[in-house]
Amino acid sequence: MTLKAIGEFGFINTIRRGCLIRPGNVVKAIGDDAAVFATEKGEVTLLTTDMLVERIHFLRDATTGFNLGYKSLAVNLSDIAAMGGTAKEAFVSLAIPKECGTGYLEDLYRGMKTLAAAFDVNILGGDTTGSEADLVINISVVGSAPEEEILYRDTAQPGDIIFSTGFLGDSRAGLHMILNNISSDSEALKELFNAHILPRPYLREGRFLARQSGVHAAIDVSDGLSSDLRHIVRESKTGARLRTEKIPISKNLEQFCNQFDSDPVEYALAGGEDYTLLCTISSDHADHVAREYFEEFREPLYPIGEITDSENIELVNPGGEVRTVTPSGWDHFNK
Amino acid sequence: MTLKAIGEFGFINTIRRGCLIRPGNVVKAIGDDAAVFATEKGEVTLLTTDMLVERIHFLRDATTGFNLGYKSLAVNLSDIAAMGGTAKEAFVSLAIPKECGTGYLEDLYRGMKTLAAAFDVNILGGDTTGSEADLVINISVVGSAPEEEILYRDTAQPGDIIFSTGFLGDSRAGLHMILNNISSDSEALKELFNAHILPRPYLREGRFLARQSGVHAAIDVSDGLSSDLRHIVRESKTGARLRTEKIPISKNLEQFCNQFDSDPVEYALAGGEDYTLLCTISSDHADHVAREYFEEFREPLYPIGEITDSENIELVNPGGEVRTVTPSGWDHFNK
Repeated sequence: MTLKAIGEFGFINTIRRGCLIRPGNVVKAIGDDAAVFATEKGEVTLLTTDMLVERIHFLRDATTGFNLGYKSLAVNLSDIAAMGGTAKEAFVSLAIPKECGTGYLEDLYRGMKTLAAAFDVNILGGDTTGSEADLVINISVVGSAPEEEILYRDTAQPGDIIFSTGFLGDSRAGLHMILNNISSDSEALKELFNAHILPRPYLREGRFLARQSGVHAAIDVSDGLSSDLRHIVRESKTGARLRTEKIPISKNLEQFCNQFDSDPVEYALAGGEDYTLLCTISSDHADHVAREYFEEFREPLYPIGEITDSENIELVNPGGEVRTVTPSGWDHFNK
Repeated sequence: MTLKAIGEFGFINTIRRGCLIRPGNVVKAIGDDAAVFATEKGEVTLLTTDMLVERIHFLRDATTGFNLGYKSLAVNLSDIAAMGGTAKEAFVSLAIPKECGTGYLEDLYRGMKTLAAAFDVNILGGDTTGSEADLVINISVVGSAPEEEILYRDTAQPGDIIFSTGFLGDSRAGLHMILNNISSDSEALKELFNAHILPRPYLREGRFLARQSGVHAAIDVSDGLSSDLRHIVRESKTGARLRTEKIPISKNLEQFCNQFDSDPVEYALAGGEDYTLLCTISSDHADHVAREYFEEFREPLYPIGEITDSENIELVNPGGEVRTVTPSGWDHFNK
């Protein structure tokens, strides 16, 4: 079926079902000039927005609609997670090329709705329009949090322990598989592929961390450990020291790096799109928070180094050798 | 200067200045994973989003960056106006082709900032990324309003008088000028051109109408009088009767239609992008509201017809002749 056959409003009607997950605070969902909703009492509003462009962020033929929709929403939810917020409402704008059929688009919405339902997020509105060339997806997500609990980038303090909520570098391995046509013929490769394709937003974990005493700063790993940690240290006017042997590398990535002769630490530092949270916790609270975190999620909070009062990010090898980490993450205009 | 030379974060730093117009309720502006702001006490949140795509909505060579930025924000502010809200925070996502220089982009931001400042709206965040082909602009605008004052599309009632806050059809004439290379060599043509290029969001007027008793429904004229009124009558399960001689046609459009042998009423019905507000007011409040409106803005509220209990939109000529208006506005997938 083509969009031309069903029209703009026909399309909106087909995707409407399953968009309203948590109707409690919604006054008006899809269907007017704007959506209308109430913010949680005593909380402030968080808003993040991300644009995904065909041939820049994805190849339409190399991904399913479902996976594309899922990831487009996941990267936005991850930004709310990195602030310690609860994600509430999503707004989806699509610029759709003529040859893109309604099947692909419904699949795309199915991916978004699956993730939205898993995290109690409404899809409350958006915009649909045509495109002469590329499929473009812009999602805005509204969240909320108590003002005094929000986690920023510029509030790390020297002496803080730096943690990651999950493995780093897996997503880069998944991307390597896609770019080099390596098929997912083992459980390990399948999991690396999925780390890139269906990233997990650490929303509950971010909210948990934001509630704990001593958690100072947080960011999500979208551009790579070195780039994202750099945001924290630059804006907090601090430095950082990472311990090579502490960087959480999955068994899958170790196996992959043996097989393809790569360095897993490089994958972790420069890879990006892991969407784990990096957070910094004062040294006198760090052990307690890590224990509570494990109690809550049955997953470790990985300590990877500490915030320093230098201006650099240093990497210390087990032998004590120190090297300065240069930024190697993603800049959209400088590849 | 190219974006590649200054990089993504260099670009963000150049456009940052002048984005924060009304800092009072802002906790965190541009520069973290999400913006953070407080909603007005006792009010609910409105959110609208619109995507503008090169070669669909605009030709980059045929518009200045300033005008493109101005209009991109104006169409979003107009959606908040049509709900009777106050616009508060804007979020701008850009997908930028390689050959698009920083001069054009700074000009685009200058257009947005000029309009944002005029309506007390912050630009609080967004996303910038690359594009292989077209420039794409997505803007999300957050507004707020007391819940009991918001104006919807589905609340018109038979007997309501239908009003427009301004002339209809001017924007279509401006578009005709652009498509046919007609230069603005008279004051009249210049004003028609500007009606298309720099549309005025009726934000203060929308808020004023939302506060009055008896104002039932509203929408902004983005797709054309016939299409946008159709949204109101369909969703309110009513019909409408328009009076040909009451449709507000500017002197400029009359002059233009004489010169180019067109029908101004057709321009008004099918044109679109006028961004005036259509509202429906109960007949016993209509005169009073129109008088108060004139007192406040020194501009008339134009009565153009009434809501009926039929299912159609009818157009009545001064001679009493009635014809049914078919939808003729814009559908992005059905041109």
